[in-house]
Amino acid sequence: MITDKKYFEKISSSISKYCKQTPSLSSIFINDLCGSDIVFKCENFQITGSFKYRAATNAILNLTDEKRSKGVITHSSGNFAQALACAAKSQNIEAHIVMPENAPAFKKKSVEKYNNNLIQSKPTVKDRENMTRLVLQKNKLSFIHPSNNLDVILGNSTIATELLSNNPNLDFILCPVGGGGLLSGLALSSSALSEKCEVIGVEPINVNDAYRSIISKQIETNKTTNTIADGLRTNLGNINFPIILKHVNKIICVQEEEIIDAMHLIHKELGILVEPSGAVSLAGLLKEKKIFKNKKIAVVISGGNVDPNKLPFN
Amino acid sequence: MITDKKYFEKISSSISKYCKQTPSLSSIFINDLCGSDIVFKCENFQITGSFKYRAATNAILNLTDEKRSKGVITHSSGNFAQALACAAKSQNIEAHIVMPENAPAFKKKSVEKYNNNLIQSKPTVKDRENMTRLVLQKNKLSFIHPSNNLDVILGNSTIATELLSNNPNLDFILCPVGGGGLLSGLALSSSALSEKCEVIGVEPINVNDAYRSIISKQIETNKTTNTIADGLRTNLGNINFPIILKHVNKIICVQEEEIIDAMHLIHKELGILVEPSGAVSLAGLLKEKKIFKNKKIAVVISGGNVDPNKLPFN
Repeated sequence: MITDKKYFEKISSSISKYCKQTPSLSSIFINDLCGSDIVFKCENFQITGSFKYRAATNAILNLTDEKRSKGVITHSSGNFAQALACAAKSQNIEAHIVMPENAPAFKKKSVEKYNNNLIQSKPTVKDRENMTRLVLQKNKLSFIHPSNNLDVILGNSTIATELLSNNPNLDFILCPVGGGGLLSGLALSSSALSEKCEVIGVEPINVNDAYRSIISKQIETNKTTNTIADGLRTNLGNINFPIILKHVNKIICVQEEEIIDAMHLIHKELGILVEPSGAVSLAGLLKEKKIFKNKKIAVVISGGNVDPNKLPFN
Repeated sequence: MITDKKYFEKISSSISKYCKQTPSLSSIFINDLCGSDIVFKCENFQITGSFKYRAATNAILNLTDEKRSKGVITHSSGNFAQALACAAKSQNIEAHIVMPENAPAFKKKSVEKYNNNLIQSKPTVKDRENMTRLVLQKNKLSFIHPSNNLDVILGNSTIATELLSNNPNLDFILCPVGGGGLLSGLALSSSALSEKCEVIGVEPINVNDAYRSIISKQIETNKTTNTIADGLRTNLGNINFPIILKHVNKIICVQEEEIIDAMHLIHKELGILVEPSGAVSLAGLLKEKKIFKNKKIAVVISGGNVDPNKLPFN
């Protein structure tokens, strides 16, 4: 496995031409509430409003010239769709985005801001995958999976690289787990850059496939997608799971109300709007305060793409 | 007048040990709406939630050792109260804060987080001033005015120094005008650091003393304090007004609904909570779009201290 510090710094440096080094925020109130020293890493301020822009940028940067000339494709109903559309535009290559026809209108609109090749498929994941395969073969495109792709994972790793460069004494990094691309990326760079910093995943209890997968040591699936954290409904993949298994020891599971409470607290105390998936890490910290007492913790706010007119709190 | 670039960079560097270099945000949607290239300078993320922390920090840094040993005092019902209380604590000196007894409870609480010397006065400005004089004389404290003090003005100047260092091609900086400390500070450093960048003030039409003062060339007062932008109800002072008169050519006046609309737009498009005074600069830009077409503009969001449960929009 990759364990060289310079390797991760090089990835950070190569994406820095395209991506933002996102700001960190803190709140005396939340520090007191948890009894810990917390930095919130605000990927809601990343380009396209989520960490996925780092992933998409790094994946495109690592294509051969021949592949770049043909273009890329992904299927996503969420943040990776926007991220890939925008990153491709910024690097001057063609992107095709397959979205289910029932994806929210505001998400489709966000993709269309950057891209004219929006392809709508029938709603199921199978439909999306079939449509993607069809377009991919016809145009000889490179498929980029939103989470189960090594360059995507390494793009995500840059968040921990930035965090540990500014806060070398971190004890923990907390991040949400959906498809596993973020958790595996942070775990990879963190284990190379810090002896003590431990990366912990947080996921909604209703879709706790990662929690169960770590116990059974095989990829478990979810029986439902019933969570407000729409970015976390997916399952782990065969590329990111071995990394998670090797470097991650703990997943915290949180209830739906705990996610909404964390979103509300972030809005009130940090003054920022985050999406439910983005608030999950804080929900995990609040749930297991005791473990984190007197520790230095980074809480990754993964994204901010939420409709401000439809917030789940008052 | 001070016109040396290095002078302003030195002030920035001296406060940087205590203050944050605040992040800048941007929005493709707002750029398109205005036809300009806009950076939002987010002082809502400054320590204590407003630019006043720069002012308070610089004022304390410039006290003699003897004055530091005796402590400081100010009267304020708003952001400067919090800023001075926190800056004094961080530099280990004593601060006394006079606040009117009818100041909102959440603002008093914010001051008490940092400081035990909160003194309540009767509501009028005269009452506050009298109470301040009394405490000041008894304890031989240094009085620091929230806006009409050269070190306060120079502390504020660091916002333009940061902006122009990161965006040397700025055409305009827009900022709110209340007591005049921010506008004069930005105008001073901007005129030293850039040949072309013009600083423009924006104020609520209901309290447009700065607009009238620039025309009459003398300090005008407001007949009312009837504006939602509670930070902008004060008048210019004899130290900042000459600077404004020399360096500022234009003040834009905005209506109350325009301020609320700008606050709402910032919440929706940038995903951050700002106070009404903090949204006034954008209201001015939206009002006079034509002047700013195809220009590179910095919009100073001066603060974010607003009660999230009492927002003036849905």
